[in-house]
Amino acid sequence: MGRDIDPRLAIVMSALVKHLHAFAKEVELTQEEWNFGIDFLTRTGQICSGERQEFILLSDTLGLSMLVDTINNRRPSGATENTVYGPFHVADAPVREMGATITLDGKGESCLFEGRVLDLQGNPIEGARVDVWSDNADGYYDVQQPGIQPKGNNRGIFITGPDGKYSFIGIKPVSYPIPDDGPVGKMLAAVGRHPYRPAHMHYLVTAPGFKTIVTHTFVGGDEYLESDAVFGVKKSLIAPFDRLEGEKTLWRSPFDFIMAPDTAGA
Amino acid sequence: MGRDIDPRLAIVMSALVKHLHAFAKEVELTQEEWNFGIDFLTRTGQICSGERQEFILLSDTLGLSMLVDTINNRRPSGATENTVYGPFHVADAPVREMGATITLDGKGESCLFEGRVLDLQGNPIEGARVDVWSDNADGYYDVQQPGIQPKGNNRGIFITGPDGKYSFIGIKPVSYPIPDDGPVGKMLAAVGRHPYRPAHMHYLVTAPGFKTIVTHTFVGGDEYLESDAVFGVKKSLIAPFDRLEGEKTLWRSPFDFIMAPDTAGA
Ligand SMILES: [Fe+2]
Ligand SMILES: [Fe+2]
Repeated sequence: MGRDIDPRLAIVMSALVKHLHAFAKEVELTQEEWNFGIDFLTRTGQICSGERQEFILLSDTLGLSMLVDTINNRRPSGATENTVYGPFHVADAPVREMGATITLDGKGESCLFEGRVLDLQGNPIEGARVDVWSDNADGYYDVQQPGIQPKGNNRGIFITGPDGKYSFIGIKPVSYPIPDDGPVGKMLAAVGRHPYRPAHMHYLVTAPGFKTIVTHTFVGGDEYLESDAVFGVKKSLIAPFDRLEGEKTLWRSPFDFIMAPDTAGA
Repeated sequence: MGRDIDPRLAIVMSALVKHLHAFAKEVELTQEEWNFGIDFLTRTGQICSGERQEFILLSDTLGLSMLVDTINNRRPSGATENTVYGPFHVADAPVREMGATITLDGKGESCLFEGRVLDLQGNPIEGARVDVWSDNADGYYDVQQPGIQPKGNNRGIFITGPDGKYSFIGIKPVSYPIPDDGPVGKMLAAVGRHPYRPAHMHYLVTAPGFKTIVTHTFVGGDEYLESDAVFGVKKSLIAPFDRLEGEKTLWRSPFDFIMAPDTAGA
């Protein structure tokens, strides 16, 4: 490498080459396996489009995305943990009134999601933005089925008041497969892994002065909790889903978000 | 991973994930660097076409291609070493008469290439197929300039007789840059590396009962011998290029190819 290059780039590239070579040496990579690898990467790149990012899927399914999140989002104990962002967030989700329903297609088992956004000392955070999204009862996000699902189905943004409370009515999410008709799906099949994610509700929680939370709550008891295709499950993110009798909604899922202060500028 | 999967695949994938994670942990890969990596791989895949293989270029420039060759082509001492194959071989090069010229465009400094194809004991190998190709005086292979260079310019196949001798007239090759207008070229620039390869003549030498040799001879004294963009230089492959006075050709480059027996079936 040259002399006057970015010192961080030098560190990253040296380590990349070192580990890449160590891998090839350890397994004594054959010429045929190298050929396959070149072809796999090429196919992975060529299936990418504006709507599809197969390399993110590859990173997710190899556990790299979760590892990078863990490295970069160390939090004090007590703060809500992050998990994978996923490809289905949209920037322009509708801001809805507190308590409103996000399920526009009438499908699925209705569920009341509620809780508080708190700081590490347990004080409510006012003005927190709780951006939520989930699949519908058929296992698809609205953006996967334009023209079939109403726009904004099972998504919305809620702004907390002085009590820090949030609540909305959605559905109990269902487990769904990640897109498995490309190279990554073939890889999962070859190593005997299923493509499913355990059922979850996505949350992006932001508030001035606090570290952004990018996370899910998982439905306890889901059959894929131990084998999430993208390794996103953390115990602390498994939420209660309580069956209700004689209420407006079939289920209730309480969960509090605990935000750590943003010390990036400190 | 599943239970009934290919055991070799299990070994390779486990090692890949282990080294990938070790890399991310060692450098504490940031989210921005991960984003860049995803984008880099995507761009690399999307520039690939029937005529261009940017992932092979990436593997070459990271030294992985040479490493895989070294792992898979261990030879007894005395046998001619391999180096990178490169993207410019063609399957249907013309078979030419021994001693014929391969340079059809009349450009460059003429050079007589000659030597013998021998076994490890020094016996001549009859019927060896010596497939040779180089760039022209402007640094381009014929396949890079269809319609500009004559087809088959600076390439040909020569079959040895009972004396194992080969000879042909080409040009003294010139150093040239690998294609550097894509993501790999940007990577080289960012780490302060030039894209040049030291001047070389390509050889693919095959003979029944012997291990195929995929190699080059390098022009001694080339300014890029110590910094080949694809790490292909081995000392044993640097050939003499002797200046001739009063001869038909300006240069003479003698080189013997020593073939190891093919014990793959043994
Ligand atoms: Fe999801
Ligand atoms: Fe070459």
